[in-house]
Amino acid sequence: MQTLKVDLGKRSYPIYIGSSLLGMYNLLAPHIKGSQVLIVTNEAIAPLYLDSAKKMFTGYTIETLILPDGEQYKNLKTLNQIYTKLLQSKYDRKCTLVALGGGVIGDITGFAAASYQRGVNFIQLPTTLLAQVDSSVGGKTGVNHELGKNMLGAFHQPQAVLIDTDTLETLDDRQLSAGLAEVIKYGLINDSKFFGYLEENMDLLLSREPAAISRAIHISCQNKADVVAKDEKEAGIRALLNLGHTFGHAIESGMGYGNWLHGEAVGAGMLMAADLSCRIGWLPQEDVVRTRNLLEKAGLPVTGPGMATDKYLKIMAVDKKSEAGKIRLVLLDKIGKAKVVANYPKDLLLETLIELG
Amino acid sequence: MQTLKVDLGKRSYPIYIGSSLLGMYNLLAPHIKGSQVLIVTNEAIAPLYLDSAKKMFTGYTIETLILPDGEQYKNLKTLNQIYTKLLQSKYDRKCTLVALGGGVIGDITGFAAASYQRGVNFIQLPTTLLAQVDSSVGGKTGVNHELGKNMLGAFHQPQAVLIDTDTLETLDDRQLSAGLAEVIKYGLINDSKFFGYLEENMDLLLSREPAAISRAIHISCQNKADVVAKDEKEAGIRALLNLGHTFGHAIESGMGYGNWLHGEAVGAGMLMAADLSCRIGWLPQEDVVRTRNLLEKAGLPVTGPGMATDKYLKIMAVDKKSEAGKIRLVLLDKIGKAKVVANYPKDLLLETLIELG
Repeated sequence: MQTLKVDLGKRSYPIYIGSSLLGMYNLLAPHIKGSQVLIVTNEAIAPLYLDSAKKMFTGYTIETLILPDGEQYKNLKTLNQIYTKLLQSKYDRKCTLVALGGGVIGDITGFAAASYQRGVNFIQLPTTLLAQVDSSVGGKTGVNHELGKNMLGAFHQPQAVLIDTDTLETLDDRQLSAGLAEVIKYGLINDSKFFGYLEENMDLLLSREPAAISRAIHISCQNKADVVAKDEKEAGIRALLNLGHTFGHAIESGMGYGNWLHGEAVGAGMLMAADLSCRIGWLPQEDVVRTRNLLEKAGLPVTGPGMATDKYLKIMAVDKKSEAGKIRLVLLDKIGKAKVVANYPKDLLLETLIELG
Repeated sequence: MQTLKVDLGKRSYPIYIGSSLLGMYNLLAPHIKGSQVLIVTNEAIAPLYLDSAKKMFTGYTIETLILPDGEQYKNLKTLNQIYTKLLQSKYDRKCTLVALGGGVIGDITGFAAASYQRGVNFIQLPTTLLAQVDSSVGGKTGVNHELGKNMLGAFHQPQAVLIDTDTLETLDDRQLSAGLAEVIKYGLINDSKFFGYLEENMDLLLSREPAAISRAIHISCQNKADVVAKDEKEAGIRALLNLGHTFGHAIESGMGYGNWLHGEAVGAGMLMAADLSCRIGWLPQEDVVRTRNLLEKAGLPVTGPGMATDKYLKIMAVDKKSEAGKIRLVLLDKIGKAKVVANYPKDLLLETLIELG
């Protein structure tokens, strides 16, 4: 087992990464305050891992809530189901919420923990690659609104994140590829060496070779933890982690939540960002080609769903990075160097959307 | 105009108290970050004060949202109306939410500000005595769940609180009395001198004599600001501000939100707390009599609605101060000295509920 630390002063917490961690009794005990634990998971994950997860909390009062699976359920209505379960079970301010599942389960459970009785403890047990390398770390929690993705939420750090790499064995190929999009992201924004490693080892990752997978998760989490420690509430550099996300959110929202996986939309979005960066004259053409090739190799879409340009622009204007209606984008100077840009030629953005949207 | 400060380091903010403040151009400008302002108010307040409030934000983009009036609307559904308005108006992370109204408007708008795009600025313009002396100060925000009052929410401090004492001229007598319950509370928990002042000057307060009202608001806000500065997130002494509230919430919830005003329920609840404290042998009988007399003089109910004891106990168990189902109560040693108690004779609590519930 390896342990990383997210360094946030009093709110610091460990990320445990390794094999056979789920079910390990007492590993999480130091991170639980009271006697009451609610495990929130979904219909796909419960048959596979709920029993193991429960073993970690032997001796505590354990309740479970099994939600339907999919981004389309990440909304206020499902959030209220968690609140109702907590209140029906008479859970108090010292209770702990445990998110067992992918990004949707982590985000919604985290927001429930942030807002139940004005804030209770929570623990992340991510079971998808995407959640393990990205959404379970850093304290972003929330739900979607029909008019915008992740528009409602809170910054609420977990007490611990436990990544059992064995859970990837049951992940379907499409979900694995979606997670790889966020892995590739760290290479693109900040770590050209890691990008090179991914180019050389994508076959191993796709075949779920344990050492390669562990290494990719570890480097991704380290990248994320470093950025979050420097800028917890996204006043600055944390925005770089949104590479491809403004385009991607438009695809997810425009196509109806749940049709495109988040990682798939981000994959297509990152290529749009690379393409626009190249059109502006920043990113060399060969880096666009490398980006496209790596995304393709990872099994990700490299164009959007053919959505109308107007629809993109309308949804993209409702983005958390927007200011006074102006769309701000994360763009690339080169592989390994990203920046947030508010002033870019609008006509070039249109070209990118027409070509790749 | 008097200015108090709530001292919370980087999150410190001013409370402005005075006459003719609403509508004063530029007073709030230092507390607004971006260009977009949403004023949230209700149907009762809008015809009276919305135009004045708007004048304070000349030069900004101003949107308004007028909600129905009453505690029964303080729920997730109404919260979502605020989110929808913000998204339809394309409001960004630098927008400011302004709560113009009583405690319900302040609490729900504050929670919207805490959670929209993971947190935006907000300003409180309280127009009821209760909101001015209690709920607008200290950063508690939230909504009710059908299974418990204020169970969903966040700590989110405003950028400023502006109390225009002129707004009390249009407050109906019942609401004035409800606000006086929270004023009396500060005397009971921490300030016997202030309690004496209230005994001597209740007639002036009921006749809305400006100097007396201003003084009562100022002392109440000072009391609240001191407690909040010491214990922002209620790890300790802030819980004392809940005197009468566990009983009161049971009345509000049990009778259906909106039937008993919050202050009325707290008034009856404080006498129950005093009565129980006396039965245990802590509070002298004469202090119970003084408490009853002052509440009565303020026009407040001194018994509950005759609700069944079982119903009280069931609802009281779902309280944010509860731990593992055990009801914790704020009780009194004497007028001006309160404490949080988990161990009290259950049979005496039953006697109180039977006699005064």
